Amino acid sequence: MAKKRNVYLNMQHLAEARRILFERFSSGGRWDAEAIAVLDSVGRITAAPVYARFSSPHFHAAAMDGIAVKAELTFGATPRTPKTLRTDRDTFYVNTGHVLPPGTDAVIKIEQVTDIGNHQLQIEAPAFPWQYVRRMGEDIVATELLFPSNHCITPYCLGALISGGVFQLAVRPKPRVLIIPTGSELVDWRTQSPTALAPGQVLESNAYVLGKLAEAIGCEYVHHATITDDATQIEAAVARGIRDDFDTVLICGGSSAGSHDYARQVIESLGDVLVHGVTMMPGKPVIIGAVKDRPVFGIPGYPVSAIMAYEQFVQPYLTALLGRPEPRRTRIDVRPTRKIASKLGLEEFIRVKLGRVGDQVVATSLPRGAGSITSLTQAHGIIRVPPNVDGLSGETPVPAELLGPLDAVDNTIVAVGSHDNTLDVLADLVKLRAGHVTLSSSHVGSMGGLMAVKKGGCHLAGTHLLDTTDGTYNKSYVQRLLPDLDVKLIHLVQREQGLIVPPGNPKNITGIEDLKRDDVRFINRQTGSGTRILLDYRLTQAGITADVVNGYSTEEFTHMAVAVAVLSGTVDVGLGIYAAAKALGLDFVPVVTEQYDLVIPSQYLDLKIIQILLTTIGSETFKQRVADLGGYSTAMTGQAV
Amino acid sequence: MAKKRNVYLNMQHLAEARRILFERFSSGGRWDAEAIAVLDSVGRITAAPVYARFSSPHFHAAAMDGIAVKAELTFGATPRTPKTLRTDRDTFYVNTGHVLPPGTDAVIKIEQVTDIGNHQLQIEAPAFPWQYVRRMGEDIVATELLFPSNHCITPYCLGALISGGVFQLAVRPKPRVLIIPTGSELVDWRTQSPTALAPGQVLESNAYVLGKLAEAIGCEYVHHATITDDATQIEAAVARGIRDDFDTVLICGGSSAGSHDYARQVIESLGDVLVHGVTMMPGKPVIIGAVKDRPVFGIPGYPVSAIMAYEQFVQPYLTALLGRPEPRRTRIDVRPTRKIASKLGLEEFIRVKLGRVGDQVVATSLPRGAGSITSLTQAHGIIRVPPNVDGLSGETPVPAELLGPLDAVDNTIVAVGSHDNTLDVLADLVKLRAGHVTLSSSHVGSMGGLMAVKKGGCHLAGTHLLDTTDGTYNKSYVQRLLPDLDVKLIHLVQREQGLIVPPGNPKNITGIEDLKRDDVRFINRQTGSGTRILLDYRLTQAGITADVVNGYSTEEFTHMAVAVAVLSGTVDVGLGIYAAAKALGLDFVPVVTEQYDLVIPSQYLDLKIIQILLTTIGSETFKQRVADLGGYSTAMTGQAV
Repeated sequence: MAKKRNVYLNMQHLAEARRILFERFSSGGRWDAEAIAVLDSVGRITAAPVYARFSSPHFHAAAMDGIAVKAELTFGATPRTPKTLRTDRDTFYVNTGHVLPPGTDAVIKIEQVTDIGNHQLQIEAPAFPWQYVRRMGEDIVATELLFPSNHCITPYCLGALISGGVFQLAVRPKPRVLIIPTGSELVDWRTQSPTALAPGQVLESNAYVLGKLAEAIGCEYVHHATITDDATQIEAAVARGIRDDFDTVLICGGSSAGSHDYARQVIESLGDVLVHGVTMMPGKPVIIGAVKDRPVFGIPGYPVSAIMAYEQFVQPYLTALLGRPEPRRTRIDVRPTRKIASKLGLEEFIRVKLGRVGDQVVATSLPRGAGSITSLTQAHGIIRVPPNVDGLSGETPVPAELLGPLDAVDNTIVAVGSHDNTLDVLADLVKLRAGHVTLSSSHVGSMGGLMAVKKGGCHLAGTHLLDTTDGTYNKSYVQRLLPDLDVKLIHLVQREQGLIVPPGNPKNITGIEDLKRDDVRFINRQTGSGTRILLDYRLTQAGITADVVNGYSTEEFTHMAVAVAVLSGTVDVGLGIYAAAKALGLDFVPVVTEQYDLVIPSQYLDLKIIQILLTTIGSETFKQRVADLGGYSTAMTGQAV
Repeated sequence: MAKKRNVYLNMQHLAEARRILFERFSSGGRWDAEAIAVLDSVGRITAAPVYARFSSPHFHAAAMDGIAVKAELTFGATPRTPKTLRTDRDTFYVNTGHVLPPGTDAVIKIEQVTDIGNHQLQIEAPAFPWQYVRRMGEDIVATELLFPSNHCITPYCLGALISGGVFQLAVRPKPRVLIIPTGSELVDWRTQSPTALAPGQVLESNAYVLGKLAEAIGCEYVHHATITDDATQIEAAVARGIRDDFDTVLICGGSSAGSHDYARQVIESLGDVLVHGVTMMPGKPVIIGAVKDRPVFGIPGYPVSAIMAYEQFVQPYLTALLGRPEPRRTRIDVRPTRKIASKLGLEEFIRVKLGRVGDQVVATSLPRGAGSITSLTQAHGIIRVPPNVDGLSGETPVPAELLGPLDAVDNTIVAVGSHDNTLDVLADLVKLRAGHVTLSSSHVGSMGGLMAVKKGGCHLAGTHLLDTTDGTYNKSYVQRLLPDLDVKLIHLVQREQGLIVPPGNPKNITGIEDLKRDDVRFINRQTGSGTRILLDYRLTQAGITADVVNGYSTEEFTHMAVAVAVLSGTVDVGLGIYAAAKALGLDFVPVVTEQYDLVIPSQYLDLKIIQILLTTIGSETFKQRVADLGGYSTAMTGQAV
C-alpha cells in the first residue's frame, strides 16, 4: 500500500461535533460594518440599529380629497341644521396628501359638501378633530428605531427606510468563503468545456454547489482552481486563504482516511483538527479544523456528503457570522411507503419524494448512496433517522424536513410502478401546462406499483403485466390484486419490448433463444417487473430454463439501467423498451408489442392534479412527443381500458 | 372643483378581479427562451426540458479504497477456507473513484485484505458482483431527463446539471416591469439626497419597493423618472413602455377617483380599463387595464395599498409569465388579542404581530391605515377578514398568513403595555445577543398591558402605575388585577416624566398648574396609561378639574406621539418622558421620577427567549445605552421588585 492509512480521529456525534465547532468559534468573526445604499440593501443584515431621520408624514396631511376646516366650526351640524362655511375664509380644497392649511385640523370628504354658491358650502354633519388627517409622525417619528441590529432587510423594509430618510445604512459585510476543489480526477469544465469524458475523469461540481448555497444565505465565495491530490499544493492554498482573510476555507475532497486523502494532514500541519468523522450518513468523513482563528473544513467528495457536511457545519457558522438564525426547514409528518433500514450508531439522512395521497403525506425513499446528487434534486424532503434507531417500520408516521414549500408536496402527482420513458415526457408537459404541478415517478416495477396502489402509497401506478393465460394486459392482475378497490385503468401507450444489444449487434442476437448461448451475458430486470414476467413467459415458451441463462440472477430496476449495462460492455444483451435502446444509440431486436396502462383509484380521479394529468395525456402534444421517442403507438392513448 | 370627478368603474370583488385579469392575459407573455451558463442559472426557470449529456459516473468506479477483483474468483472464501489472490494478475489496488480495471466487477475493502507476501493477498469472505462499485449511470444516465420545463434551478440542481455535462441551458427570460412613479408631491431623493423636507413633499419609495418585490421573484424592473400629475406625460411614458416591450407597466399613484388622479384616464385613452376598484382594504383604488396585449396597472399611492395591489394582481401575472406557481404563504391559526372590527363588503388585510404565548399563537393588530408602511415591516402575518364577515371576536382562532418563517413567530418575545424608549434599546440588544430572537412591543398603556397578561396575550407587560394612596408603583395594581396569577415583577428603569414643550419653552410653562391656562393647548394620553393616571393624580393634587384643561379629551398613545404633537405646533405641551423630548430636540420640565417595571408570569421565566431578555437587561451594555438616552436611572435595573 502506497502510504500508511489514516484512521478517523475524534469521530463525534452530530450534536457534539456542532458543539465543538461553536465552542471554538462562538465569538469569532466579522462584526464590522459596511455602509451601503438603501437600494442595495435587500437581503443584507443590519450591523447597527437603524433610526429614522425624518418623520412620515413629516407634516399634517389630508387623507381624503375634500375640504380642510377647523373642526370646531362644524360642531352642531345636522341634516336639519346644516352649517354653512365660507370658502374664502373657513375652508380650503385639499387633495389626498396635501398639507393641511394652517389653522385647520380636519378634512370633510368632498362628497359630503354641498356648494350653495356665493362662496358658501353647506355641511350636514360635524367633523371631529383630526378626521381624515394623517398626522405628522403617524407612521414614523424622526429618531425612532426602524430596525434593530441583525435585521434582514426585505423589500418592504425599503419603504420604511426611504420614508424615514435613510438612504444609506450599515450592514454586515458578506462572509467570504474560499472553496478549494481537490482531486486528480477532477476536470475543469469551465476552461475545457469537454464534449466527452475519459474514464476516470470527473466534472467538478461540489465546489460550485457549496458556493451557490453560501451565496443564497448572503455570503460571497471564491472558487479556487482545481488542485490535484498533492498535500503541498493544498496546504499552500489553505494558508493563502487564511492570510487573505477568508472567513473560512473548505477543502473539497480528500477528507476521508484513504491513502490519497490529504485534508487532515494539511489542517494538522497548519492548525488543529477538532473533529474528524461524524456519525452521520451521508457526510461521515467531514473534518472540522481550526487554522489561526478561522475554521477550515474538510468536505467529503461525494456530492450528497459534501452538501450534508456544508449544511450541518459550514452554514450554521456562516449564519452566526451574519448574526442570523440558522435557516430551519418546515417539519411535517409523513408515512414511508416501505420499511427503511438504517444503521445503529449513525444518523441517517434519507432523501424522500413526498406527495399527499388521501389524508396522508406519503414518502418514497430515493437512492441512499452519497454519490447520487439526483437523490437530492428529486427529493421533496429528508427523513432523519436518529443514531439510536435501527430503521423505520413504514407504518407509523415520522417527521420529515421539507426542502421546498408544502404547496409543492400538495401539488405532486405520486406515480409508483413500472418505468417507462414516456413518463418523462408526461412530467415535462404537466409542468408546462401547470407550473405548480409535479409528476413524481418512482420505479419499483409493475407489481410494486399495484401494491403501492393497494396500500394507498400513490395516486397511480404504471403497469404492463401480461396475463400469460389469455395474452391480455393488466386487467386480470388488477381484478385479482385489488379486488376491493374501485380503480380506473387508463391506457397510456403501446410499446415495443425487445432485446437491447450493442451497436451493430456484434453477437448476432436474433431472439430469446440466443439467451441460452454460453457466449452471451444477459442482464435481468427485478422480480415483479412486467418485463421480468414477459421474459419468464418467453423463456418458458422457448423451453429455456433460468439456470442456463448467463446473468439471469443479476437484476436492474429500469430500462435505462439495462441499456447502460449493454452500453458499458458489462453484458451483451438485456430485455427492454425501444426508447431506452434508441436513447443510448444501441441496437434493438423487437420481441413483442405490449400495453402500458395507468391504474388510478377512482377516488383520485376528481383531484385537480389528476385532471391536469389526464388532460395532458389526451393532448396532441403528448402523442407527438411520444411518437418522437420511437417504439411507441399512441392509437389508444388516454382511453379507458 | 378643478375637474369632473371620476367614480369607480367596474368595482369588483378580489376573486372576480383576478379572474378578469387572468381571462384576458392567460396565454400572454414571454414563452421564449434565453440560453445562459449553468453557473448563472440559480433561481432561473427552465424553458425546455433539460437532458443529461453525460452519464454519472460515466465509467464503473470503485466506491471504496481497496482491491478490484472479478467477483467469481472470491466465491467460497471463508475465515476457515480463505482464498488467495495474486496481486500480479487477479487484483488491482484502487482508491475511491478510480476506474474499475477491465475484467473486474467488485471491490474488496482494504481492511478486509491480508497481504501474505510473495505477490499474494488473502481474503476470508466472498465479494458479490458489483460490491462497492458505482456503476456507470448509477446516478445519471446520458439522455435522461434531469429537469422538466418550468423547473426552478436551485444550488443542488447545479450538481446534477454539471455532472450531467449541461454547461448551458435554456431558461425563461426575466419578465420586465416598467414602474412609473407619478405625483407632484414626490421628491427624487436619489438625485437630491435631501437633508430636510418641505411640507407637502413626499419621498418616493413605492416604485422601489414594488421593483424589489418583482426582482425577488425573478423579474427585472426599470424605475421611470418621477412624473408630476400630468396626464399627457404619464400617457407618453406608458405608451413608450408598451412600445419598448415591457411585460407590464405600473402607474404608481393617481389610481383613485380624485381630481388629480389620471391613471384611469391614461389607460382608457391607450386601451381598456378592465377593473377600477376592488373591494379590498388596503388596495381598493387599484386599476387593472389592458394596453395592446399587455396589462397596465394603476397602483394606489399609499404604501400598503400599493403592496397589496401588487401582491394580489401584478405578482400572480408575473409568476404566470415565468410558468411558476404563485408564492403562497404558510397559514397558521392565531388568536387575536382583541376584537377586530371590519367592514362588511370589503376584504380586509389586517397586519398583525404574532408570538407563541403558552400553547397559542397570539395576534396583536397593527395600525390599519394604508399609509403605515411600518404596519407591514413590523408584521409577522396578515389576517384576512372576508367581505361577508363584520369583524372578529378575538376569542376564536382565525387563520393568518405568515410573512416570514414560523420560527420567527416562535422566537418572538411578545411585550404588550406601556411605551418606553428603552424597549427599543432592549429590542436591539436582544437581537445582537441572539439573532433569531425578536422583542416585539405593542403599546396599549400600562393597564392594557396588565389585561393582556391576564388574558394570556403576551409574555410580559411594561407598566408604571402609580398607587396614589401610598406612592408605590405597580405592585398593588398587580395584586389587585392579577390575584390568581403567579407573576414576577422585574424592575426595568426609573425615568423622569415631565412636561414636553417647544424649544425655548415659549409659553413659559413651569408645572402642572400651567395646564389650566387659557392660552395653553395640552395633549393627553389615553385612559389606562400610566401617564394618564399620573396626570390625573397631579391635577387632583393641584385642584384642577379636567374640564378646564384645554385639550384634555384629545388622546395620543405613545410618548413620541405626544412629543410630535408639540413639535408640529398642534399643541403647546404634553406629559411624557424625557427621552421623547430629547429625541425630537424639545424642552422638558421635570414633574416626577417614576418606576417602570416588567410584569412576567412565572410560567414564562424559564423560556429560552425570556432568559435571553433577562440576561440582556442585566448587561452593562444595556445600562450604558439607557444612560445615553438621558432621563433614566438604572440603579435598580434587573432587580426583582
